[in-house]
Order: sequence, then C-alpha cells, then structure tokens
Amino acid sequence: MEKLKGMPSKDGFHMPGEFEPHQGCIMIWPKRPGSWAYGAKEARKAFAAIAGAIGRSEKVYMLAEAEEAEEAAAVLPENVQVVVMGSDDAWARDTGSTFVLNDQGEVRGIDWQFNAWGGLEDGLYMDWRKDNLVASRFCETMGYPLYDAQDFVLEGGSIHSDGEGTILVTEACLLSKGRNPHMTKEEIEEKLKGYLGAEKVIWLKRGIYNDETNEHVDNICAFIRPGEVVLAWTDDEKDPQYPLSLSCLEILEQERDAKGRKIKVHKLPIPKIPVRVTEEDLKGLDFEPGEDEREPGERLAASYVNFYFSNDGIILPQFGDENDKEAVKVLSQLCPERTVYPIDARSVILGGGNIHCITQQIPAGRKGDRI
Amino acid sequence: MEKLKGMPSKDGFHMPGEFEPHQGCIMIWPKRPGSWAYGAKEARKAFAAIAGAIGRSEKVYMLAEAEEAEEAAAVLPENVQVVVMGSDDAWARDTGSTFVLNDQGEVRGIDWQFNAWGGLEDGLYMDWRKDNLVASRFCETMGYPLYDAQDFVLEGGSIHSDGEGTILVTEACLLSKGRNPHMTKEEIEEKLKGYLGAEKVIWLKRGIYNDETNEHVDNICAFIRPGEVVLAWTDDEKDPQYPLSLSCLEILEQERDAKGRKIKVHKLPIPKIPVRVTEEDLKGLDFEPGEDEREPGERLAASYVNFYFSNDGIILPQFGDENDKEAVKVLSQLCPERTVYPIDARSVILGGGNIHCITQQIPAGRKGDRI
Repeated sequence: MEKLKGMPSKDGFHMPGEFEPHQGCIMIWPKRPGSWAYGAKEARKAFAAIAGAIGRSEKVYMLAEAEEAEEAAAVLPENVQVVVMGSDDAWARDTGSTFVLNDQGEVRGIDWQFNAWGGLEDGLYMDWRKDNLVASRFCETMGYPLYDAQDFVLEGGSIHSDGEGTILVTEACLLSKGRNPHMTKEEIEEKLKGYLGAEKVIWLKRGIYNDETNEHVDNICAFIRPGEVVLAWTDDEKDPQYPLSLSCLEILEQERDAKGRKIKVHKLPIPKIPVRVTEEDLKGLDFEPGEDEREPGERLAASYVNFYFSNDGIILPQFGDENDKEAVKVLSQLCPERTVYPIDARSVILGGGNIHCITQQIPAGRKGDRI
Repeated sequence: MEKLKGMPSKDGFHMPGEFEPHQGCIMIWPKRPGSWAYGAKEARKAFAAIAGAIGRSEKVYMLAEAEEAEEAAAVLPENVQVVVMGSDDAWARDTGSTFVLNDQGEVRGIDWQFNAWGGLEDGLYMDWRKDNLVASRFCETMGYPLYDAQDFVLEGGSIHSDGEGTILVTEACLLSKGRNPHMTKEEIEEKLKGYLGAEKVIWLKRGIYNDETNEHVDNICAFIRPGEVVLAWTDDEKDPQYPLSLSCLEILEQERDAKGRKIKVHKLPIPKIPVRVTEEDLKGLDFEPGEDEREPGERLAASYVNFYFSNDGIILPQFGDENDKEAVKVLSQLCPERTVYPIDARSVILGGGNIHCITQQIPAGRKGDRI
C-alpha cells in the first residue's frame, strides 16, 4: 500500500484519548511458544474473554494465523471478526497501528517502526519482521490511509494521549538505547508532537519495576479523561516499585497539561503480593534462540493500570490478588458511566504484558461513516 | 449493526459504474457441494486465479468459512485478504452488499433481501439465511454504513449502473414471481431509483437462455462506460439465445439513457458451441434436498459478458471455445486502457454463474481515505 508522507499534525490530525468513542479494537490471537505457555491454552481463554467483553460495545478484529483461524473462530464469540494475518506475537497495542483523527472525522493510521522493544540492543526476540507489517496490513485491509513512520521506533504502549494535546511517556522507554539512540530527547519530543498532533509531552522517568518493555507508560499511568490519570502505586516503601511510582507522582504534581491544567492523580494499587513466574509456567514455555527468557521466581510487571477502555467499559486485569477488588472499586468510582469487566489475566501477564498491551483501539470516525 | 433507514438517493448517494475506481473487491471461497463439483477442486483454482488477477490492482477480500480459511490462505496470493465469514454459497455479487457513493466520497452499502433467486417459488436452495447476512456482516466488519433494504428482494447481478443515473435490468428477473410479486413494475422502478440514485431504468425483457437466476442482466448486457454497452450475441437464428439477444438489441436501440444519450451497443459473441453439463460433472456434485439439480447435457448460461472490471483490467471468462479469443479481442479493442485477463472459468459456470457473479466491487471513496 502507498503510505502517506508528512506529519499528521500538519494535516490537522491528532491522537484521541482512548476513553473517546471507538469504531473497534484490534487483537491478535496468541500462539508464540516463548510467550504463551502450554500452547497458549490459558492465554487463549483470557483473550477470548477479553474479546467478548470488548465486543459488547465495539467491533473486535482478531488477527489470526491461517492455521489458527478455525480454532479461533470456534472459541470466540460471534461478534468477534477473525481476519487471517500473520504476526510474530500478539501485542496489538505495539504492532497494530496507532490511529489519529481530524475534525472532519477522518481516521488514519501511523506505521511506527517496530523492533521487538529494543532491536538487537535489548529486544525480546530476534525476528520481528511480521510484527512490523501488522499495522500496514491491517490498514490496507480496512481501507485506512497510513502515515509512514518507519524512520522512528515506537510502540503504542509507550504513549498515552489525553486527546487534547498532551502525551504521556517514560524516559526509560523512549530514551532507551534500543529505539532511537541517534536522536536527542528534544528531537523525539518533536516527532511525538508531529505524529500525534500534540503540544505537550509529559516525561515520566520510570515505569513498572522489571517491565521488559523498558517500562512502557501504559503499565504505570493512564489518562481516564483530560486532566486526570490513574497511577500504579504502592505504599510499601521497601517495594522496588515505590521509588518508581513516587518519581511519577512528583512529576505529575508539578506538571501542567497542554491546556494548562494541573493533573489530578488517582492512585491504583499494584497487586499486594507480586505475581511471579513459577516452575510450572516455565515448563510450558518454549523459547527460540535469541529470545528473552524467563527465570523461576521472576517478578512480573503486573499492574491494574494496564486496562482497556471499551466504548461501554473498562476491561480490567485480575491476578487472584487481594487488591483485585480494590482496583475494580477504584475504577468503578472514577468512571461511573462505564461497566468494569474484571478478567483473570495471569496468563496474559505471564506473556509479558496485559490487557492494554494486547488491544488497540480504532477511533470512531465520521458519524455514520464508521459504526 | 444499526442499519440506516431511508433512501440513498435522498442522502445524495448513487451507484457508480463498475468501470469507475474501486477500493477493493469481495469474493467468497467456494464450498457448496451442490454448486462446486468434487470438493470445489477446480472451482478453487479458478477463484484463486481470478482473485490473483483482480489483486494486481485492487484489494481482494476473500470471505471463507472458519474451517476453510487455512486452505484458502495457503493457495491464494499474498495480496488477497482472507476474512473468516460463513455463507451458504459463493455468489458475492448477489449476497455481498451493493455500494453507493456520494459527492464527498463517502461509501455506503445497501442490504437487499436475498432469497436464493426466488425463495420458495423458484429459489435454488432451501436455506439462504447465512447468505442474507453476508452484506451486513461485511459492512460491519469493514465499517461501512449500511442501508436497510430487507423489504426488497434483489441481487447485485440483476442490476448494472452507468454511474450517471441509468440502471439496466431485465423484466424476466425483476418481475419474477419469486422476488417482489406484491409490487408493480412502477413500484419496483421507484425502489431502484431511490436506492441506486438513478433517474432512468432501462428494462430489457430477457437475459441468457437457461439462466437459472431468472436471467440476470449481468450475464447478457453490461455498461463499459456511460452510453456504451456490450451485449451477448449470436448470429445463429436457430439458437434459442437469438430471440433473447435480439429483443435486447431492439430495446437498446430505441432507448435513451438518463443523460438523453443514445446507447452504443457492441456485440460480444456467446460461445460457439454451448457449454453443457457432463455426466462426469454430475458425479462430482452433491445436492441437498430441495436444491435445484442439474441434468446431464443441460446447457449452461455461459456468456463472456459476465466479466469483472478491476481497476486495471477486465477479468474475462474463457470456456475452451473458439470464441474465447474473439471475446478477448473485442474487449481489448473496446477498452484499450485496460489489460484483459482471460481465465478458464468452466468450473465457475458449472456452479451457475461466472466471474461477475462471484465478485462485488467496493467503490473507491474519498481520495486518500480508501486506498
């Protein structure tokens, strides 16, 4: 497909907030043996439950390998559309296109370069060529024009937008050596503004402890509406997450957004007992040469901030932890207009991310044009 | 999905000519045992060749049953997108949505009622419920708004548009007892004008001899541009096709189109030796109770008019007949700006239609919006 050159911001496009209306959601049927244990058996149950919950209020496109399409269609709810497409793994947030919108309701994609979270420097697997094609193949299939951003390494999980000109990122990720080491922080900020139609970038320093994405922002802090965020939090000063969350809080308390507003921060607890990889988990995983491997007892970057806003709901990860209920409660109170759908996501975090990482929203376009 | 009420014409929409630019083309992977002999073996080769030729200049969406998706993806060219969707048979022209366009480049679908070419009166199979859902499922998947025309029985193959206000139909089909017997010819004409944004309907009387669709217009006569048609023709006065084609010619010579132009008619020969069902063909077919069956020796409604205009070409059926070359020659001369792709389509006509019947174009929308 012929890609658009130039910058979305110059064409009048910007990235809406995830809490704004969606046309649909992209997901990818999991299969990678080094991410999804025991033939992705449990992961597929979680993905199906997540797709079902999202499907209650928006279209879900489940991209599946040709040889998996039949099984996927058999276990997925009827309102989930299976589309045959190859990929290296199932992280639609990072490999699916980021979408931008203009005032006339036109929707376009951005085709970031994807290098498996760090390329040869500290990427998580060695061959990401199919993943790097997901955005363009999807946009071509669905008829969305696509901006060419293959000169810039970025993942959807490393940015959050308030839809009103503010972008949230972490330095740990965006300034990592494995992404755009030839660029200065200022140059990266200019790229973000140009592609996402933003005026202000808020740079948090760190994300969630031991997050192998180099600490994607979407695991630690998310806008719930303009001027308001939820922040992953622990009061336990001995927890390695404590200083990371504290530094975010300090920055957020000092910053103003693009509209000059102070930012209201709502704390969302992390799981009380860290979620860890078990020997049993490891037996079910099968790593390729060069693939990042897990260790028994390794702490996973489990966070309730890694939820997805669907049109009518919040699809919220649960870990079998005592804070599961608290997360439901906090988000129900913060977003009373939405239904919280709590879904057991231990099998997803074992893969290295969570519900937000395996979903990518497509904004609703012109009224009546995209339903 | 929520369907649009009202009439496309009132909203400023009309049906473009097939020779105008396309965003893509819908096809359906064949499987029905009563249509496609020997497990659709030969038919699938033809469908793949057709999809490949169309795919040279536009996106092809191949709708496939979940259990067929893997095989379809394996044998189809890479630029063909497999989408998992159920159906009763593979006639995308008749079960896919008809699309309309407005001056702003917005594209919408129309969801005609499909009743297997005649319902309980003389329909070709007994259960067409999945076929009747193809248009809405596809439009929902692709994000096209859809007009609700479920109160009107029509197939895409029974209409041709010149894109400038003229619609071509046959009385044999549109006034058949199995479609809208409660409506007068005038009422049907009003529906066509309202849905297709047309001012003039040209009523041919008949189509191709022994055409089980009640003589769809797309098998006998097609616009190649506004003011010009190709007409299936034989000079053999003893051929049962002769009076049918002659009556079309007489009507076309007298008629004017919506713009007041006389219509230039180009004759396209039918195959010299009628294509017939063989005993061998029949052995490979497996009819369901209530399904229309074929007879050995039965003459098939083979016609070169049943081609598809892709963005750069004409995908033209071939029957192993001595007139194959003549059809290529006539269309190459009439449309020198296009490439003619001749494709062996005997296995397709055995199913009851041809290349035009198994394809449905999606018009290109706003420049840059639909690629």
